[in-house]
Amino acid sequence: MLEWLRRYRRAMLAGDISAGLVVAMMMIPQGMAYALVAGLPPVVGIYASILPPLLYALFGSSMTQSVGPMAIISLMTAAALAPLAAPGSGLYLVLAGQLALMSGAVLLVCGLLRIGFLANFFSRPVMSGFTIGSAILIALGQVKALLGGDLEHVHMPSAVLGVGALALLLFARNTLAPLLRRIGLRATAADIGVRLAPMFVVLGATVLSVAIDLQAQGVATTGAVPAGLPGLNLATSSAHWRALVQPALLIGFMTFLISMSAAQALALKRQEKLNSNFELLGLGAANIGSALSGGFAVTGSISRSAVNFAAGANTPLASVITAVLLALALVAPTGWLALLPLPALAATIIVAVLGMLELSTLKTAWRYDRGDALALLATAAGVLAMGVEAGVIIGVVLSMGTLIWRASRPHIAVLGRIAGTEHFRNIDRYPAETRPDILMLRIDANLFFGNVEAVKQRVEEGLRSHPEARHLVLVMTAVSSIDTSALFALAELNQSLRQHGIGLHLAEVKGPVMDRLKTSDLPAALNGKIFLSAAMAWDGIPCEGEIREPVHDAVAPSAGRSL
Amino acid sequence: MLEWLRRYRRAMLAGDISAGLVVAMMMIPQGMAYALVAGLPPVVGIYASILPPLLYALFGSSMTQSVGPMAIISLMTAAALAPLAAPGSGLYLVLAGQLALMSGAVLLVCGLLRIGFLANFFSRPVMSGFTIGSAILIALGQVKALLGGDLEHVHMPSAVLGVGALALLLFARNTLAPLLRRIGLRATAADIGVRLAPMFVVLGATVLSVAIDLQAQGVATTGAVPAGLPGLNLATSSAHWRALVQPALLIGFMTFLISMSAAQALALKRQEKLNSNFELLGLGAANIGSALSGGFAVTGSISRSAVNFAAGANTPLASVITAVLLALALVAPTGWLALLPLPALAATIIVAVLGMLELSTLKTAWRYDRGDALALLATAAGVLAMGVEAGVIIGVVLSMGTLIWRASRPHIAVLGRIAGTEHFRNIDRYPAETRPDILMLRIDANLFFGNVEAVKQRVEEGLRSHPEARHLVLVMTAVSSIDTSALFALAELNQSLRQHGIGLHLAEVKGPVMDRLKTSDLPAALNGKIFLSAAMAWDGIPCEGEIREPVHDAVAPSAGRSL
Repeated sequence: MLEWLRRYRRAMLAGDISAGLVVAMMMIPQGMAYALVAGLPPVVGIYASILPPLLYALFGSSMTQSVGPMAIISLMTAAALAPLAAPGSGLYLVLAGQLALMSGAVLLVCGLLRIGFLANFFSRPVMSGFTIGSAILIALGQVKALLGGDLEHVHMPSAVLGVGALALLLFARNTLAPLLRRIGLRATAADIGVRLAPMFVVLGATVLSVAIDLQAQGVATTGAVPAGLPGLNLATSSAHWRALVQPALLIGFMTFLISMSAAQALALKRQEKLNSNFELLGLGAANIGSALSGGFAVTGSISRSAVNFAAGANTPLASVITAVLLALALVAPTGWLALLPLPALAATIIVAVLGMLELSTLKTAWRYDRGDALALLATAAGVLAMGVEAGVIIGVVLSMGTLIWRASRPHIAVLGRIAGTEHFRNIDRYPAETRPDILMLRIDANLFFGNVEAVKQRVEEGLRSHPEARHLVLVMTAVSSIDTSALFALAELNQSLRQHGIGLHLAEVKGPVMDRLKTSDLPAALNGKIFLSAAMAWDGIPCEGEIREPVHDAVAPSAGRSL
Repeated sequence: MLEWLRRYRRAMLAGDISAGLVVAMMMIPQGMAYALVAGLPPVVGIYASILPPLLYALFGSSMTQSVGPMAIISLMTAAALAPLAAPGSGLYLVLAGQLALMSGAVLLVCGLLRIGFLANFFSRPVMSGFTIGSAILIALGQVKALLGGDLEHVHMPSAVLGVGALALLLFARNTLAPLLRRIGLRATAADIGVRLAPMFVVLGATVLSVAIDLQAQGVATTGAVPAGLPGLNLATSSAHWRALVQPALLIGFMTFLISMSAAQALALKRQEKLNSNFELLGLGAANIGSALSGGFAVTGSISRSAVNFAAGANTPLASVITAVLLALALVAPTGWLALLPLPALAATIIVAVLGMLELSTLKTAWRYDRGDALALLATAAGVLAMGVEAGVIIGVVLSMGTLIWRASRPHIAVLGRIAGTEHFRNIDRYPAETRPDILMLRIDANLFFGNVEAVKQRVEEGLRSHPEARHLVLVMTAVSSIDTSALFALAELNQSLRQHGIGLHLAEVKGPVMDRLKTSDLPAALNGKIFLSAAMAWDGIPCEGEIREPVHDAVAPSAGRSL
């Protein structure tokens, strides 16, 4: 906590100041736009960008993370509040703060309980699907503001302004940056310049709209902004608190996931060590701070943090500078903020979320692991069809589902001895001799509740296809853990084999696994022995039949390897 | 399907008839009691015991499973219907059928999709905790019926009858069975006799209550039972259908879990092969059948199935006989069924669920794996505090939570070479030589989204503590799979190591893992080589420093084993 301040060196200052400035200029239109996504007055987005980064700087673990409003979290806020209050109403504003407070409390408690491993409940393909679905949902939600009406009732002045802004922003992103680089600008400088395009486009649109009085022609604007800094804003009925519990849990979870993936991407570039528990504390404090200062739910944003890093941020001082600049902007005359035309803001939102439509994960997964690719597509479809809250749950279920599904088909090899050696190998891959009285199986997975029934079934199938076997040897080289469910299953297998006069032996049990097994009744009850190695089991079990020659003497597909 | 009928032999008939009789006599009080738990008229419990076992016999996979009302599923039915209708009302009855229909449809669809692996979402300790919590909840729910009023307003005649019946049933269970065995009865016969105690106690209580006219003194009875077989019973508003979707999913899931654990226990005794997908189909058909015949949600019951098995059931014909007997009982004069005193039925429920309060799983887990024991207790507490529906979700979350928590602390060993050999071992356990320019890590887990960040962190820590290392060799002996998330993480690790001039090498990659890796860009992008074995990596990477002698030459704690 604040360790960065103790180790601060003057050489870091220039980078932090320039990053602080750049991010502040990026934050003004972005914060306002994401407040709109959340159904809130745009100025709330700026409120949410002041105290949160300061508090994150106190507790958070990433040096260059930029905490503030973020598109997906705004979408989730809107989804949570929609059934409870009308957007724009006073109640809506209060509930938005309360939701941030509750999410913050959830994050803080998780951080204090040190359960940062929660971030591991989402697989990366599922996260990618969730992001894609949310991005499409957000973009679709802005079409009406962009065109000044729905597709059948386009308001021409608004549509011209909106689509013009959209075209300019797309030009900046797709054409200007390569152009700037080609004329000699450094790649980072060019990228940063392009990142400020929304600021200039919004400013330009505002100037234009004032100059030719577009408001009189019916182009919507952000509306009056109260000057000065916001205050505390809380307290309503207990029914509202209860209705927000589930959204707060889901938003807390996604806040953490999104922030962690941004922090991880940055840590990779900076060779930083992340601490997921500090990340939880930092985000918790930031969200509680946001609630206490009239803001709404915030998180670390990967795009903004990347700009912060690229613009030279060395420490959280950059975020502190951003926050101070934004606070100053609110203290200064804010009348101009009321004149920002909504179609231009909608254009910035659409271009921002287009950047989230990243398909490389899908492409890689499609080639590498079709199951993961399908989980990605199903999550995206789930978000689009059932909304962003259901999408979180669908994402967790699909992540866990693919995991359990894979676990339910463990790899189990029948082993034989490579003649004349002490090596035991998969008889399907190697020419290995076998004994009719022994069935030797190597289980290539940790034993836990998710695969234990499958393992039992495979063992039973193995015994059925080796009816002469009087001994079953489980070779445990690849078993690093056995949970309580698997312990019971082994005990049941032992009991059932005893009834049929078949010995159950274990071989090559790893040290930590054996230590734990000794605390149970299994070793004493075992209807057989525990051998140090497969070879010792082979030699130690009296032979009741002739050793069989290898079934095939084909050269193994990957000779010399331990398969 | 019906394969058992093709292979039926006359020798099986005697066992099936006796089991059919015994289970029918057990089913009448039990079915009525569990209907009461569900908030339904007792006769509905008998309706639910006729068509469902017949349909299960057509599709199910277990030979001796007894399908019908079951305490926990009845509790879940009551919890689902409580917010929608008043117990005893016509609507309540209709909704109970609808809920069974929807659960049945869920099960049927899951069976057709062949996703029987869903049963693996609950660990055994969590299932035990869920059962204990539910049993306590059910027993507490019957205290009022047992005493004829709440604790402050005990109705003496009811309480005397109820507590008397309870004492008799406990005597039968705890004293009579050992006694019968001691006087020479076979153990199974004694147990079966005791299982019929509820039938005799309920009959005795009915006779007594009629003889001394307890009804006139205010002892509640089951009330009028319509004679004849029930008919179809469906259709209400779409709001009701929607409200039942989530309960139907949860009840379907638990129906499957409970039935599978009963079937697995039986399969263990009979050396049967279970098919979880056929189990889904059988349960789905049984529940739809229950709905169509005026019943409610049903499942396989472990206690009843054990009696069925013990009484000699060889095939589902036993269940068919039970069903026919129950149907006959309904066609016969049913006036006496109206006179069953509720306190006696409450006593049978309490004694039945006491049998579910099984603490051996907790005891074993407490010694073997404290984390699993805590998950068990947390699930039981969750059911008691938040109800049975929340309990299912808590159970899944805790099962997955322990899994992900364990995954987030993978075992990673630093390897060294046993001098003069090609064996590489954990340097903490074995005297092994190391090279300053190579860090060799063996990852003892499959790589997937749940542990990939932890692995990355551990690798980074390893590199920080070996600052001279120019090469990182990941030894993949224990890695049987790499999912898409882990593929990305490896690619990122590779990129980050490249920036720091450190080579990333892989060794001993298993065949199937390598096959899959080849479909990705990783092998081509790898900032190092893929070696067949750790020894080849050691020899193949040019040595830039002196080989270090083993740090300690203590004899390894488990010499000769692959650790």
